[in-house]
Amino acid sequence: MSHFDIIVIGAGPGGYAAALLASQRGKTVALIEKQNLGGTCLNWGCIPTKLYLGATAHLEGLHSQSRLRLCSGSVQMDMGALKKRKNAFVAATHKAMACCLDKHGIALVQGQAALLDKNTVRIDDEAGQTLTFETLVIATGSSTNWFAGLEPDHKRILDSTDLLDLDEAPESLAIIGAGAIGLEMADFWHRLGATIHVIEAAPRIAPAEDEEIAQTLHGMLKRKKWNIVTGKRVAGLASEDESVLVRLEDGAEIRVEKALVAVGRKPNTPGLGLENAGVALTGAGWIITDDFLRAAPNIYAIGDVNGRTLLAHAAEHQGRHAILHALGETAAPYAPGPIPGCIYGSIEVMRAGHTAAELTAQGKTVTVSRANLGANPISQAHGQAQGLVKVAWVDGVVHGVTAVGHGASHLVTLAEIMVRDRWTAHTAHEHIFAHPTLDEALRDALIAPPEDK
Amino acid sequence: MSHFDIIVIGAGPGGYAAALLASQRGKTVALIEKQNLGGTCLNWGCIPTKLYLGATAHLEGLHSQSRLRLCSGSVQMDMGALKKRKNAFVAATHKAMACCLDKHGIALVQGQAALLDKNTVRIDDEAGQTLTFETLVIATGSSTNWFAGLEPDHKRILDSTDLLDLDEAPESLAIIGAGAIGLEMADFWHRLGATIHVIEAAPRIAPAEDEEIAQTLHGMLKRKKWNIVTGKRVAGLASEDESVLVRLEDGAEIRVEKALVAVGRKPNTPGLGLENAGVALTGAGWIITDDFLRAAPNIYAIGDVNGRTLLAHAAEHQGRHAILHALGETAAPYAPGPIPGCIYGSIEVMRAGHTAAELTAQGKTVTVSRANLGANPISQAHGQAQGLVKVAWVDGVVHGVTAVGHGASHLVTLAEIMVRDRWTAHTAHEHIFAHPTLDEALRDALIAPPEDK
Repeated sequence: MSHFDIIVIGAGPGGYAAALLASQRGKTVALIEKQNLGGTCLNWGCIPTKLYLGATAHLEGLHSQSRLRLCSGSVQMDMGALKKRKNAFVAATHKAMACCLDKHGIALVQGQAALLDKNTVRIDDEAGQTLTFETLVIATGSSTNWFAGLEPDHKRILDSTDLLDLDEAPESLAIIGAGAIGLEMADFWHRLGATIHVIEAAPRIAPAEDEEIAQTLHGMLKRKKWNIVTGKRVAGLASEDESVLVRLEDGAEIRVEKALVAVGRKPNTPGLGLENAGVALTGAGWIITDDFLRAAPNIYAIGDVNGRTLLAHAAEHQGRHAILHALGETAAPYAPGPIPGCIYGSIEVMRAGHTAAELTAQGKTVTVSRANLGANPISQAHGQAQGLVKVAWVDGVVHGVTAVGHGASHLVTLAEIMVRDRWTAHTAHEHIFAHPTLDEALRDALIAPPEDK
Repeated sequence: MSHFDIIVIGAGPGGYAAALLASQRGKTVALIEKQNLGGTCLNWGCIPTKLYLGATAHLEGLHSQSRLRLCSGSVQMDMGALKKRKNAFVAATHKAMACCLDKHGIALVQGQAALLDKNTVRIDDEAGQTLTFETLVIATGSSTNWFAGLEPDHKRILDSTDLLDLDEAPESLAIIGAGAIGLEMADFWHRLGATIHVIEAAPRIAPAEDEEIAQTLHGMLKRKKWNIVTGKRVAGLASEDESVLVRLEDGAEIRVEKALVAVGRKPNTPGLGLENAGVALTGAGWIITDDFLRAAPNIYAIGDVNGRTLLAHAAEHQGRHAILHALGETAAPYAPGPIPGCIYGSIEVMRAGHTAAELTAQGKTVTVSRANLGANPISQAHGQAQGLVKVAWVDGVVHGVTAVGHGASHLVTLAEIMVRDRWTAHTAHEHIFAHPTLDEALRDALIAPPEDK
């Protein structure tokens, strides 16, 4: 039986960062992972999708410049080669991560972990080894979810992992659930020729975003000839010989070659023996944490599994706080500030801080100011004449910045800084924005006259 | 004879911004322009080059993904259509600017201005009108320059304005002068098929940049098969029947279809009658300004023409200061803080604040920290595995940030903020950087261990 100061379960972005920091602080550390280093983000999430979107960005450029009649031609992607490159990048990252763990003297333990009590974890490996710890960090993440009637068959009815593994573009693709995952996947396969149908049960696509931003995105995607259905649930998916029949609750039917179910995520808590350590769950099995990210006096839960924010960088940030708190370097409650988030692709969305509607719901008096991102020369140069930056203000201080349009993901850190550092219109004048940059659209929105609502 | 509170000569980015601000503050304003609204930036500089680079970004994407064998195909640009679109964008911007001036009640006066005394300017138009002012802002900018033996013939030996006006790509192109203008133009025409030769008299290309950044850029351009000659002057350019012969000082010769002379800029001061108003010049005719950007008690000189910083956004920032100072809204000397600057294209460079060498020359004890921009997943996704971010530190505070690689121009505002707001490594931890973004490479460089030099 080995003993460690700190054991981390789950080697995704949060768990990996937590393990490294604990080791850098001189603690003995074990990192338990049942599958691949890097978690969903590296293996089946952010990174593969961004590799696919980046590698095909020129297809989108070709389309938009062709629409303007500035060029002609055709480009064929080799999907097999792209998958191979993606897999090589992921494998190289696995190797680099393992090497870094080794260099820091962190014990990497492969297997499923189950808590026996509040200081002991058993590994489901051949040796069936048992490890003890002072402090535990649970960072087991989340998995793709579905509702009854929408179960993936992994052949025609797919989850996001399946869709990343296709060898060629389907002729047509239905996306059930228009959040970031669904929209990014749709964008990629659209570039490769798929006809896109998006079905979202909420009244609008990108339901987490500001309503005006989501509506602008909707309009921009319609111009790309996507069929978008909102406010309707999918009653069922039937996999047939060569197609999938998507049945909507109102009886309408859409027949497609493949369907992606992207209706949410569920926490990876089953089988962890959490009940043996006094860790409580809520809802679909999310771990309940206190203000310090603790699920028990010596047990922290960070990242997707605590259900706070399902984003890799949020997990990493929480992991840092958990370790600093466990080590007594901070006694403060976890207060992340504005958490930046993006939807990537040909038309991007970014957001940091609160939307105007969220602030209004908090009882605050909100004004907004706007700039036309499509008027920005960098956006124009890339053939995109639409887009919007929107700033939400309370008492003359920036409380939220969001945007939709070409390259909006490049604006997200700047937006986070504007919110976190409590910028005013005056702050925007103090800084020199290089010309021409997309960033100028944020400045323009900050110095635009505020309006009600 | 009309009288104005404020007269601005030159409707480039600096003059235009100054005129608008003065008008918004309730002053009577005239804006004198002898050519086009928007100055060099809009008509022959930043904007046309960025429109050309943006509209052909997909060619670069095609090349880089083809090199990785991820795709195949070909794309033909229609250079005539691209020029037309560029001209249409510029014309639409002229119209929008004129409309905005009109809305603000600013008198737009077309013609060459000449000062008669320190309160009077005569316009060289048909009416030969004379205007008087309380305060004058000179914002006449700069023009392309050349040395003896390098005079453009505007047929084969070109300046940057000529090169933007070509109807097809030359088979081969020599760029005399490897600053931002030369390198951006070379990148554009290289995408359209031109073989590129770059000749720079300084010991390295991009001589204004950090040496390590410039060397990294050099290596990356060499991989694109550019012929780069540094540390050698061009002795002469001879336009022949179908080609230009570039003779280097060491006797070597390079024969190309076209040559671009991009060896600097000269101030637009001749003919302004500055001597009649007590305005003094230095060097090639740059206006001498005091700490408040004044060339005389009631005369300000902003932008290129004062020789401080030849960048559109610097001009705009100076224009704002000049007006606020003239109106008594500030009594402070002009202190711009770090001025961001970029070289755009397939491989970009950005910089804000000082280089390590500049700080060392100021007698400061400097450390640097680095991150590999090419390891960033967004860079990797776009097929670029090289690149560098470099941070210069004094006493644990960021004093300069610079980078070379894919999309580096997207990092420049963030770099400016880091320098101006005196970030430390701790500040980088306080902010959440969205994953994956290029911005993370800046964070990685900030939290990397500092090294000497």
